[in-house]
Amino acid sequence: MNEEKRKEILKELQNYFDKDYTFSSGRILGSMCTQPHFIAKEAYNKFLETNLGDPELFPGTKEMENKLLCFYKTLLNAPKSSGGLISSGGTESNITAIWIAKKLYGKNEILIPESAHFSFEKIGSLMDIKLVHVPLDNDYLIDILKLKNMISRDTAAIIGIAGSTELGTIDPIPEISDICMDEDIFLHIDAAFGGFVIPFLKDIKENIKDFDFKLKGVSSMSIDAHKMGYSAIPLGALMIRNKDWLNKISVTTPYISSNKQAGILATRSGGPVAAAYAISKYLGIKGYNELIKKCMNTTDYTEKRISELGLNLVVKPTMNVLGIKLKNPSEVVKKLTDFGWKVNKMERLSAIRIVIMPQISKEIIEEFIPDFEKACREVGEL
Amino acid sequence: MNEEKRKEILKELQNYFDKDYTFSSGRILGSMCTQPHFIAKEAYNKFLETNLGDPELFPGTKEMENKLLCFYKTLLNAPKSSGGLISSGGTESNITAIWIAKKLYGKNEILIPESAHFSFEKIGSLMDIKLVHVPLDNDYLIDILKLKNMISRDTAAIIGIAGSTELGTIDPIPEISDICMDEDIFLHIDAAFGGFVIPFLKDIKENIKDFDFKLKGVSSMSIDAHKMGYSAIPLGALMIRNKDWLNKISVTTPYISSNKQAGILATRSGGPVAAAYAISKYLGIKGYNELIKKCMNTTDYTEKRISELGLNLVVKPTMNVLGIKLKNPSEVVKKLTDFGWKVNKMERLSAIRIVIMPQISKEIIEEFIPDFEKACREVGEL
Repeated sequence: MNEEKRKEILKELQNYFDKDYTFSSGRILGSMCTQPHFIAKEAYNKFLETNLGDPELFPGTKEMENKLLCFYKTLLNAPKSSGGLISSGGTESNITAIWIAKKLYGKNEILIPESAHFSFEKIGSLMDIKLVHVPLDNDYLIDILKLKNMISRDTAAIIGIAGSTELGTIDPIPEISDICMDEDIFLHIDAAFGGFVIPFLKDIKENIKDFDFKLKGVSSMSIDAHKMGYSAIPLGALMIRNKDWLNKISVTTPYISSNKQAGILATRSGGPVAAAYAISKYLGIKGYNELIKKCMNTTDYTEKRISELGLNLVVKPTMNVLGIKLKNPSEVVKKLTDFGWKVNKMERLSAIRIVIMPQISKEIIEEFIPDFEKACREVGEL
Repeated sequence: MNEEKRKEILKELQNYFDKDYTFSSGRILGSMCTQPHFIAKEAYNKFLETNLGDPELFPGTKEMENKLLCFYKTLLNAPKSSGGLISSGGTESNITAIWIAKKLYGKNEILIPESAHFSFEKIGSLMDIKLVHVPLDNDYLIDILKLKNMISRDTAAIIGIAGSTELGTIDPIPEISDICMDEDIFLHIDAAFGGFVIPFLKDIKENIKDFDFKLKGVSSMSIDAHKMGYSAIPLGALMIRNKDWLNKISVTTPYISSNKQAGILATRSGGPVAAAYAISKYLGIKGYNELIKKCMNTTDYTEKRISELGLNLVVKPTMNVLGIKLKNPSEVVKKLTDFGWKVNKMERLSAIRIVIMPQISKEIIEEFIPDFEKACREVGEL
């Protein structure tokens, strides 16, 4: 080891690091990613060099992955017949779901709400899938009547959003599930953000409907541990109602130790799997429940503080996502950046987004509000 | 923090860990992945929680990524006009290359040698791309005459392999490049394994031809730092001759800080980028040159020891990959597993594969050979 060279490189890295914002500072308010829990980081490190693309070399890590998938099955009320794949995140999970739907139905058209994540635009382009955009109703949820009318004989799948990226809204999944049962259409629920939140909302809020495999029409679900799962990037999962569907997207693998491989990526580290497993053990269902309660509580508090400023939300928050209406979101975002805060602008809603991730405390919101007020005043929002 | 719970979880993780093989033990002889260099691990850790899917939050990490891409440009003789994308590995890079080719040419057929990695089977299924398999010649290289005859008006791309997964062979890229220039076809080179090896082979071996962007017909290349780059999973790159092609695979991103995003994955950690950047600085071109020389030297030694046993190779190694012909590879692999060695079987070649990765020393080969001889005797190969 060349210690001098090492130090020189670490110094250069520190320079890059210092230019970044960090989750731990609490100054990133607009991201759906998080400072990973310490146990997640510790576990990640330990398993950094394992490769789940060649599972027979790493049978222990593979066993842990299977246990992690079982945890997600429980969390999402998946039946015994179900299966799952660990992925790099929501985009890969969504692609994989549509790949399965296409293979099962032999059709190339999917219906997606206008609130869907941009990964579906990628799917359209990558896979030559025709995207039919279903308008939203006044509550920013998929318009069920319009959805029904837009179904065609080419429809392979409908996408329901359980925690939209912009506003954290939850589409009426029970109604979509019924439609998909009646019409024999694959139903994929994008719960990349909401998968770790919605299971615990029923305790806190009224009118939270079922959104998972309890509904018989739900075929598959995306869930991301690197979002509200408090774990490290990259960790998503695609859960599917029938594990045999994996055969539809499997290829033979003639030179690694297993014979077949399902899904998109081949080589992938066991580090993030260990991280997500460790945090799932550390928190468990009970711990996640408490975490979500805390985030929702801070969300309510933030909502109150914003309304006290005299600003309006795009829609009352269902989850820990706030869309704040502004005349000129770009200008406010710029000002806030000057003050050291990173929030996301949403031009098409004329709004900014704040996400109350686990590391965002009331104290941070208390620090933020005066700067936000100042920014709004300076650009003429208030 | 609950210290008791932490200890309990780490103990459980240790149990899984103990069931795995490890690269550091030197007992994994068949994988193309590696024990990452210590500086790569250190850098990975530091940048674990950064997200390059939202680069304006992490401008320092993004700057580092751009520098890493510049290093790959230099390594692969890419022109000024070129660009690149960091990916999770060869599979994602290959998918992205074909995505670009499809968009540029509006055609859905690709020609791939029979030695191509199984990721192309995934591409066929995922993207509805018609795969035309080109037979190999006696040296296990793509048959140029047959390739010429198989080109049709639907051909969007030809794939050349620079370091095949099974045997480490290098297709005659100059000839394929000429064909692609003449016929106006996209040429993607899968150098996921060979990208860090072939640039240094000219110093060591005769008859090593150009394989990279020096050849005007080469449109794109895959290269994996988590293979011979001595870095950590997941780190691949797709390098492309013309950076404007990224526009063909970009979508608008209405709620993160940048306006557009090219490529497949969205959220992705800066950790592996930092790892690959750190090792590229630590080794540099000179260090990689020495590393490859050492691996090739150990490969020659291994070849000699195997031939002394009276066994034959499928083909004389071009790189640090040895295919050893056996009557019953599965049985030998089983025996070797009993002795604590992990090599890969290649049923379709009736052979096993040994890859001389950076951590495989002559001493390890000296330990392996007697066990290998014993295994071969016990199952009747010798």
